[in-house]
Amino acid sequence: MSGELCQTKHYTSQGKTKVDTGAMSEILGFIGLGKLGLPIAENLISGGFQLRIYNRTAEKAAGLVARGAVTANSAKDAVVAGGTVITIVSDDKAVLEVADEAFCEALGDGLHISMSTVSPVTSKTLSERHARFGGRFVAAPVFGRPEAAAAKKLWICTSGAAAAKNDAKPVFDAIGQGVFDFGEEAGAANVVKLAGNFLLTAAVEAMAEASAMAEKNGVARAELLNFLTSTIFNCPIYVNYGKAIVNAQFEPAGFAIPLILKDMHLVQKTSSDAHAPMPILNLLIDRYLTMMAKGLERYDAAGLALGVAEDAGLKW
Amino acid sequence: MSGELCQTKHYTSQGKTKVDTGAMSEILGFIGLGKLGLPIAENLISGGFQLRIYNRTAEKAAGLVARGAVTANSAKDAVVAGGTVITIVSDDKAVLEVADEAFCEALGDGLHISMSTVSPVTSKTLSERHARFGGRFVAAPVFGRPEAAAAKKLWICTSGAAAAKNDAKPVFDAIGQGVFDFGEEAGAANVVKLAGNFLLTAAVEAMAEASAMAEKNGVARAELLNFLTSTIFNCPIYVNYGKAIVNAQFEPAGFAIPLILKDMHLVQKTSSDAHAPMPILNLLIDRYLTMMAKGLERYDAAGLALGVAEDAGLKW
Repeated sequence: MSGELCQTKHYTSQGKTKVDTGAMSEILGFIGLGKLGLPIAENLISGGFQLRIYNRTAEKAAGLVARGAVTANSAKDAVVAGGTVITIVSDDKAVLEVADEAFCEALGDGLHISMSTVSPVTSKTLSERHARFGGRFVAAPVFGRPEAAAAKKLWICTSGAAAAKNDAKPVFDAIGQGVFDFGEEAGAANVVKLAGNFLLTAAVEAMAEASAMAEKNGVARAELLNFLTSTIFNCPIYVNYGKAIVNAQFEPAGFAIPLILKDMHLVQKTSSDAHAPMPILNLLIDRYLTMMAKGLERYDAAGLALGVAEDAGLKW
Repeated sequence: MSGELCQTKHYTSQGKTKVDTGAMSEILGFIGLGKLGLPIAENLISGGFQLRIYNRTAEKAAGLVARGAVTANSAKDAVVAGGTVITIVSDDKAVLEVADEAFCEALGDGLHISMSTVSPVTSKTLSERHARFGGRFVAAPVFGRPEAAAAKKLWICTSGAAAAKNDAKPVFDAIGQGVFDFGEEAGAANVVKLAGNFLLTAAVEAMAEASAMAEKNGVARAELLNFLTSTIFNCPIYVNYGKAIVNAQFEPAGFAIPLILKDMHLVQKTSSDAHAPMPILNLLIDRYLTMMAKGLERYDAAGLALGVAEDAGLKW
């Protein structure tokens, strides 16, 4: 797969044409109304799609129903034969259960856009499962916190068959600021998403270590991070998580500890299976395990900074 | 010192007035013509300063002499009583030797601007040494690679007495794009510089780990890093070092291994003395020790990515 992998195509929402009117009345199955799923669903309604939604916790659908969405009694029931369905659920187990054989059969030659952060192996499994019923599968994990999702500012990573990705474009246009494609191998976009989440948490750990060192030497972390995140580290990850560290604000969680820990375990499995040592990853996992052990699972991923501070005898 | 530390002042070169003509004929002592020292000296000449330079390797001064700089026979000889002298040398030992008692006595009530990356303890020592002769000391380590120095795009971190920093302003205006101040404690700016260099190398290690994981799973590091460094990590450190990793271009070194290793040992001492554990730091030091052991000291700091790749059975 190395050939097509070197031809990353990407386009942003700048200059794109309006969602064509053909999509305006399309029924979309939508499964998963979590912290990202809900604002994505809202934007799809705003973009003219008619949603047929399913969520384990039915109450979360109320606002969408008020805007014209229809609820389904099961994941399978949200699917229209030959149509498009989006899933954005918590983990590999959840998406494999949602998109079971019956679901794939119901979708038939339709399109499944999978936005969950899962392992590349799960995308491969789902892609093959759909193929048995003539269906198409696109992995499309997204980068962005809930605020970014609400503002249609998600970055979307895609992998899967070219024609299927093309069919998914109106959906992406309605929810994100840009799409980066990683080729036809089903799980490639998931590899990228996992790598990105690892880099995000590694950045938090590094900022926290630097901050603890600075504070123990008389320099406030606000001063240190305000300088760095407005100069050589002036990018969204450092700016946003730097602010969280400065303010020690880790609640409410946009990206809660159990979810980031799940992701780091996926990175661990994906790197271990491929024999790629990741020494920083191992210490990140230990940080999150400690947060779970202390009952801090309600905190945001950036909350690992508290462990760094505590190890240095600091209270943030 | 916590009070004044919370009042970080900063200004950028935008909107600043031109270097006043009073500075145009001022004689500046300048010691250290390394990869950063040389372009800084060039810009000072361009800014109207008359340089009196000293460097261990005299040949490096030729270009500056052709532009009107005068060479001195020793560090002390570069100093004008009551004037200003800039030092930018390789390490703590070098600056402590350069600015010995005789040097401080020769400078008298003049100003020493120390731009080397050294420990906060060394700045404190120098500040006290100068004070014994009525002299003033400003720590002013800079962020930026040699290209940035040549382009007057350095970021300058300062600490020291307010009046002394004010007197140093024309110098900073001639060489950088902005100054961030960290208060009156002599070593505060050095703490920030060390923290920044740690974050820089931690970012390289994290990008390399993510890239190795991705490549072992079929996603080229060019694709991964091009995406991340143009979206959520679109800041100079990730963009520039990401490019170096993608191209496996680590020579010629802008920031050679022995220098970054020296810096990481300073971070280690500064954090250890203050009881601030930095687990990522320890593995960075091991990476650089391995590069030294393999005779790769000519490589750039970003070359640690090669060790990450090699550990994963990859050849970059």
